Amino acid sequence: MTEVKAYAATSPTSGLVPSTVERREPGAHDVEIAIEFCGLCHSDVHTIRAEWGQVSYPLVPGHEIVGTVSRVGKAVQGFTVGQVVGVGCMVDSCRECGSCLEGFEQYCEMGNTGTYGAVDRRNGDTITQGGYAKAIVVDENYVLHIPEGMNLAAAAPLLCAGVTTYSPLRYLDVQEGDAVGVIGLGGLGHMGVKIAKGLGATVTVFTTSAAKADAALALGADHVVVSTDAEAMAGAANSLNAILDTVAAVHDLNPYLATLARDGALIQLGLPAEAMPPIQPGLMIGKRLAYGGSLIGGIAETQEMLDFCAEHGIASDIELVAASDLDAAYDRMVAGDVKYRFVLDVSTL
Amino acid sequence: MTEVKAYAATSPTSGLVPSTVERREPGAHDVEIAIEFCGLCHSDVHTIRAEWGQVSYPLVPGHEIVGTVSRVGKAVQGFTVGQVVGVGCMVDSCRECGSCLEGFEQYCEMGNTGTYGAVDRRNGDTITQGGYAKAIVVDENYVLHIPEGMNLAAAAPLLCAGVTTYSPLRYLDVQEGDAVGVIGLGGLGHMGVKIAKGLGATVTVFTTSAAKADAALALGADHVVVSTDAEAMAGAANSLNAILDTVAAVHDLNPYLATLARDGALIQLGLPAEAMPPIQPGLMIGKRLAYGGSLIGGIAETQEMLDFCAEHGIASDIELVAASDLDAAYDRMVAGDVKYRFVLDVSTL
Repeated sequence: MTEVKAYAATSPTSGLVPSTVERREPGAHDVEIAIEFCGLCHSDVHTIRAEWGQVSYPLVPGHEIVGTVSRVGKAVQGFTVGQVVGVGCMVDSCRECGSCLEGFEQYCEMGNTGTYGAVDRRNGDTITQGGYAKAIVVDENYVLHIPEGMNLAAAAPLLCAGVTTYSPLRYLDVQEGDAVGVIGLGGLGHMGVKIAKGLGATVTVFTTSAAKADAALALGADHVVVSTDAEAMAGAANSLNAILDTVAAVHDLNPYLATLARDGALIQLGLPAEAMPPIQPGLMIGKRLAYGGSLIGGIAETQEMLDFCAEHGIASDIELVAASDLDAAYDRMVAGDVKYRFVLDVSTL
Repeated sequence: MTEVKAYAATSPTSGLVPSTVERREPGAHDVEIAIEFCGLCHSDVHTIRAEWGQVSYPLVPGHEIVGTVSRVGKAVQGFTVGQVVGVGCMVDSCRECGSCLEGFEQYCEMGNTGTYGAVDRRNGDTITQGGYAKAIVVDENYVLHIPEGMNLAAAAPLLCAGVTTYSPLRYLDVQEGDAVGVIGLGGLGHMGVKIAKGLGATVTVFTTSAAKADAALALGADHVVVSTDAEAMAGAANSLNAILDTVAAVHDLNPYLATLARDGALIQLGLPAEAMPPIQPGLMIGKRLAYGGSLIGGIAETQEMLDFCAEHGIASDIELVAASDLDAAYDRMVAGDVKYRFVLDVSTL
């Protein structure tokens, strides 16, 4: 075991405080990573505040991890010391079910092993601890290569926000010339805009805030529709092939479904805590629409996304934060006051 | 103009009474059809009773039409006198929009022209009149060939109920070995079972009525789940690739969504009059599910379905009714007391 510095929550109301976490000695298939950066994801906040269910404290959040390989187990084949690597939302899965065998580990039928707060069945049922820490040890099957030349801090959010938007766009086979809508312009939404543009789509951003219009255009969006403007929404009717819904708050999907063309799909990425207003079946039937959901992405797909982003010069827009500012950053994140992702500079721990 | 015998509704409460309807002289591209059989669809009832909106009376319903070509216009290329043909839910569309050009006339952006009760824009804005009549005149582009050897009465419901279930199964690319669920065992549902079986799928019927289990198995279903039996529903969890929902009454979709495996889709075919309970986004996200809708099928697809049914020996299970029994048949249909489709014997008009 190696004890490393970390920031942890000790209760739902503790905020994040200096702490330590024990990392296992790298097993035969393990990669030990000296963490340099870790993105702050909205789910970190929900989890440590116990808003998504009971939590085992102390808990170190963080699942947008970038660092350098410091040690490798003797059977590791894909990684060598000194390489720049990443870890996303999963550090294990059953590796035997249909989903795992097809490369969709996120949908593992036994449940994937989250990077923090999950029971690590292959390591003595310990609770996984995330990336707000100086190091992590992860099975090489769940480690990604960060392509050369990427800004490491700006690459970190790709491991969650990037692949969460890339995966559904690829699943829907979004192509050059398709029209994609993105609801919400936060951490997920801004990645959705960049990746959809990278795939060659025309992008419409839906936002409740007219003040975000310029920012959306600056990110590459072709159109901005203020969703509270009924006339603007009507003007977008039947125009889109796919919509990524990144908003986790309760909202009525029907006005957005109306902006889809025949065979269009609206994919829910944010998970509202309460029931949403019902979908109108007539809308779905009349244009053969689909309403779906999507969860992060598989490991191979995450690597594909990283390579795609490197090739297209895509990274997250970030604001670097020191460990001592984590609580303030959380508050700003909850208030939507970040463009567009906070990334923890792990050297400040 | 030719005046032919028909059965029409004259008000929301009139029921169906002997009447006549005028058919235009066949234009250059028209086919005149001597109708032999016409299926009774639930939408006939909703429409003539004005449950789906205002209606122009008198109205002759019927959009599952089979008969023999009696005259053809001079430019008609695809049909000759004496051929057995069918007409389904549409008799025209704009023929210029993307949907029409791609063969999805049912989703015509100008709205398709329904076989009855619709404004016939190409024929003086007259109101279309359906198949409870001795004859009909239809542009050849909207006429289907009934394959040789089919029982004509049992083929009639294929024009609506058949293609309404065939189209989504094909759109979802249901293949040999896939697992398909069918919610509801009425006119649509029983066709869904037969066509899904014809495509090589394993079929599970969901019904609220345990009494329907034997009937479902007799139609070819592999499994029957009584949807009010929570244990049976739990036993079907994560087992299906696609579900056709043929129930038009309000019902909670979430227990059915739980029976879908990863990447599964539930397709709504029946249109409930009121809002359904909201879908749980977590279900959609956790298994990358889709909830969609589907409307009848395109003309080319309807022909493909007819040829498929002929090849696989598929037809509707029907009960033939005389014109004088139409009102009684409607009442039984509303009560769900028909196995599985009434077909009007037009010789009794």
